[in-house]
Amino acid sequence: MFKAKVKADVLKTILDAVSTLVDEAKIQVTPEGISLKAVDPAHVAMVDLSIGKKAFAEYKATDMDMGVDLDKLKDILKLAGAGEMLDIEYKEDQHRLVFKVGHVTRRMALVDTANMGDPKVPNLNLPNQVTVLAKELKNGIRASEAVSDHIALVAHGKTFELIADGDTDQVHLSLSDGDLIKIQAPDKSRSLFSLDYFPNMSKVVGDASPITLHLGTDYPVKLEFDIADGSGHIIYLLAPRIESE
Amino acid sequence: MFKAKVKADVLKTILDAVSTLVDEAKIQVTPEGISLKAVDPAHVAMVDLSIGKKAFAEYKATDMDMGVDLDKLKDILKLAGAGEMLDIEYKEDQHRLVFKVGHVTRRMALVDTANMGDPKVPNLNLPNQVTVLAKELKNGIRASEAVSDHIALVAHGKTFELIADGDTDQVHLSLSDGDLIKIQAPDKSRSLFSLDYFPNMSKVVGDASPITLHLGTDYPVKLEFDIADGSGHIIYLLAPRIESE
Amino acid sequence: MFKAKVKADVLKTILDAVSTLVDEAKIQVTPEGISLKAVDPAHVAMVDLSIGKKAFAEYKATDMDMGVDLDKLKDILKLAGAGEMLDIEYKEDQHRLVFKVGHVTRRMALVDTANMGDPKVPNLNLPNQVTVLAKELKNGIRASEAVSDHIALVAHGKTFELIADGDTDQVHLSLSDGDLIKIQAPDKSRSLFSLDYFPNMSKVVGDASPITLHLGTDYPVKLEFDIADGSGHIIYLLAPRIESE
Repeated sequence: MFKAKVKADVLKTILDAVSTLVDEAKIQVTPEGISLKAVDPAHVAMVDLSIGKKAFAEYKATDMDMGVDLDKLKDILKLAGAGEMLDIEYKEDQHRLVFKVGHVTRRMALVDTANMGDPKVPNLNLPNQVTVLAKELKNGIRASEAVSDHIALVAHGKTFELIADGDTDQVHLSLSDGDLIKIQAPDKSRSLFSLDYFPNMSKVVGDASPITLHLGTDYPVKLEFDIADGSGHIIYLLAPRIESE
Repeated sequence: MFKAKVKADVLKTILDAVSTLVDEAKIQVTPEGISLKAVDPAHVAMVDLSIGKKAFAEYKATDMDMGVDLDKLKDILKLAGAGEMLDIEYKEDQHRLVFKVGHVTRRMALVDTANMGDPKVPNLNLPNQVTVLAKELKNGIRASEAVSDHIALVAHGKTFELIADGDTDQVHLSLSDGDLIKIQAPDKSRSLFSLDYFPNMSKVVGDASPITLHLGTDYPVKLEFDIADGSGHIIYLLAPRIESE
Repeated sequence: MFKAKVKADVLKTILDAVSTLVDEAKIQVTPEGISLKAVDPAHVAMVDLSIGKKAFAEYKATDMDMGVDLDKLKDILKLAGAGEMLDIEYKEDQHRLVFKVGHVTRRMALVDTANMGDPKVPNLNLPNQVTVLAKELKNGIRASEAVSDHIALVAHGKTFELIADGDTDQVHLSLSDGDLIKIQAPDKSRSLFSLDYFPNMSKVVGDASPITLHLGTDYPVKLEFDIADGSGHIIYLLAPRIESE
């Protein structure tokens, strides 16, 4: 059973966070909120999203799974203005989600979850942590896209760096103690990442929100940030590219 | 003879209303205003538009026809801001319309009207009438486009419904007495309509304007609404799709 | 040596002015400011741009040339908001320009200037001058694009005209004494120009800025206007089309 009332913005954040990796997703519903884990087809990036019931204006649910076609969800969200409320209810007999926006009722068939795996979030030992305003990270990523298809993320001491090396051009974002919200990097770490995923992943965070990066050397990066005014949380894991030298 | 001064917005409404059905149109000019009837090439939809001279800042005309290329009219409207005035004059010797916007004079050749018929508006006996805010109808149409290529319009008693049935998904707009401006539907009516025409036709009405639908069973729908602050009026007729069952 | 601090808007104006003609340009740097001359590949249009050091928040330079890839400059400008400052420095050892926007450092390789000529601005004797608000000229050009691929510019006495003659339609902009800022046209001049260049060239001037046209008969037009609050100046030369009659 699942019955909720929620602002369109909250659903939009979930959609943006997940649709950059997959077209369909299995949402896990519990009495306390919803969560979702998904891995992109190339097995390079993973999202682990959870939103507590506090993010909803109304929320009532028992344990269940729902397979959702994200393109359909995108269409449905177009029916609501940013601050508008949606009523959502799971109809078990029809195996459908029923959305109500204003006077419009939209019945959406769910997708079979039998073939959707349950990705396990790997237990990574990432020694360094950097917390930074999302805006700074986004600026670095945007600049990098013009010169290369990958970036290096480096943390050492009190400095965090993002470096993109192109054939002739280079981008270098260097943030030190005062420009960062927090850094803990006793041993220097450095890993390379593809720019195929970073731009869309970082779009989900508001410019003024803090984002935390957990880093190691030639290890995945773990990105963490809150959504829905703190009642939700997103973790992205992104596999490194191995430096060929 | 035709000589007028009019706000760009009024011309734009005419253009939007008609260009969704045809590329060229015959405008009928009288001392009291202009009117226009057009049928789309597939003979599925008809527009019957009239605008009184009160919609014009200045207006002076005798009885005549003008064949207008609507793409050219669109180009000309781009030269004027939304509230800007256009001077329009018919030059008989050149068989041209002359538009003045600011210091720019644009001479536009008219199109031969010999091959443009005079569509007769059929005399339909449509038993049910529903008047609703355009916004509600637009929301229903927009939602429907994602699930199907046609919709059913149903009126019975105090309820008006718009239903789109897709293979797996469904849209249902149900408006009752309090949500409608007016309804008169003693006997239930139901007709199916293609979504090829509805979205563009409904874009012409302002969200906050009332629109009246005249409905029967397996009969055309007649849509009516005012434009240009009530000094103009548009009627659309749209043929039904026959339900195959 | 070249080291400067400048608002993104100033660089954007330079970019817009030049990128309509060429993809790469040689910028000449002196202690007093920068300048740039470029001719489009078809040798139809030339730009001659100069910006004094007053247009920069900080400026320090010795005589030198820099070959710049304009597409890269466009990417770099995307990193800065309209009023945001960029730090620019030439690094001789790397033969690169280094831009700083916020915490992002972008190193851009310069382009070899060996194959970029030094276009000489021809010494033209253009008898007539017209100064007009850029907005009026832009309106005429925009209207003309819909009816023809070229325009005639005519000056005689106290009147300046822009005429586009299409197969059936015509555009005519006629500005007399009171609508012009200044006109001096003792002998009538008339030349034809392609519309391939005019629209982009005129986009560089603000609507409310004066633009001066120097005109002759079957002669190039010279367009002149200030940029960067008067501390910069742009001259365009555009070759005429010869009227075939």
